Amino acid sequence: MQALYTLDFATPDSPEMNFCSACGQPVVFRIPPGDDRERYMCEHCETVHYTNPRVVTGCLATWEDRVLLCRRAIAPRRGYWTLPAGFLENGEAADEGALRETWEEARARVVIDDLYTVYSLPHISQIYMFYRARLTRPEFAAGEESEDIALFREADVPWQELAFPVIRETLEHYFHDRSRDSYPVRSSSLIVDPSRRRGWG
Amino acid sequence: MQALYTLDFATPDSPEMNFCSACGQPVVFRIPPGDDRERYMCEHCETVHYTNPRVVTGCLATWEDRVLLCRRAIAPRRGYWTLPAGFLENGEAADEGALRETWEEARARVVIDDLYTVYSLPHISQIYMFYRARLTRPEFAAGEESEDIALFREADVPWQELAFPVIRETLEHYFHDRSRDSYPVRSSSLIVDPSRRRGWG
Repeated sequence: MQALYTLDFATPDSPEMNFCSACGQPVVFRIPPGDDRERYMCEHCETVHYTNPRVVTGCLATWEDRVLLCRRAIAPRRGYWTLPAGFLENGEAADEGALRETWEEARARVVIDDLYTVYSLPHISQIYMFYRARLTRPEFAAGEESEDIALFREADVPWQELAFPVIRETLEHYFHDRSRDSYPVRSSSLIVDPSRRRGWG
Repeated sequence: MQALYTLDFATPDSPEMNFCSACGQPVVFRIPPGDDRERYMCEHCETVHYTNPRVVTGCLATWEDRVLLCRRAIAPRRGYWTLPAGFLENGEAADEGALRETWEEARARVVIDDLYTVYSLPHISQIYMFYRARLTRPEFAAGEESEDIALFREADVPWQELAFPVIRETLEHYFHDRSRDSYPVRSSSLIVDPSRRRGWG
């Protein structure tokens, strides 16, 4: 299980920084004045280049007693099932991003009920946010990054073929909470492999 | 009130990108193949440079019936009161970042009870997350970015001197929820000035 998170979603992480994106001169990796951790910085134009965690946002979308899952058409974890989700874009609210990803990956229109899970994955510098949502119609289709979309009852969820631990965690919480008809927002950290934590965090 | 968000926290946003940080060649701003929005990309080494929203994390920390506020020693909104908070760092869980910021800005040690608010500020591409927390001792001191730290009862909160709308929103929710002894996680968008939304989101 440990390797899964480090592969996680497909959009590439920020590339290694060699040159200042402002002035084009080589950068150094050191602690800026008044700071306490190493950053890429430019000694020519004095720009400090901060990098920060990214937010992944998506929907746990249901139709009657079934949940919507997407079979991934892309690496990593191609062929495995996931909830529709992806990186939040600049200018988007988190729920807007969840709706967009649900449309892009599953061609499904949903109504969001509420925020449901907030997971920190510090070893890969990501925050996952899933919203509980309901399909407005039982209509969906595979978007470009999916090879299949389907609705699953709890007993039929392909637990052994889920793409990422965070997906299993979210689904397990959901079915548990549904049995009690109470959906508190769940917030925690999922640290799969602490040895992979970046030294600069 | 509209201008406040656009000034928001002091750490500079990513600078304009002129050069590829991987290879040092000039970048272009256009829609990459297979994408649907403009990105900075390098036609020389084919790197696409994604930029994404940042997470601001902090604590609504209390001692008995009082909340901990920090008077800002830095721009923007120097001299105004805020909750201890700042940008989540790579390698951190959201609650770890909230603890770190509470220490850095208020030199206060706290125990976190739970996630409390998740606000999207899409016009400045930020996600705010506040945790409810309790001071372990009534001890605190101004960190480098604060000029004063104090505990306030509800009646004494300097409502007219709060630094940012998101701080007011969080405090108002807190006192309302405290009166009912129920603290549901609150999630919403705060769009102060939609005209300032970035065109590339």
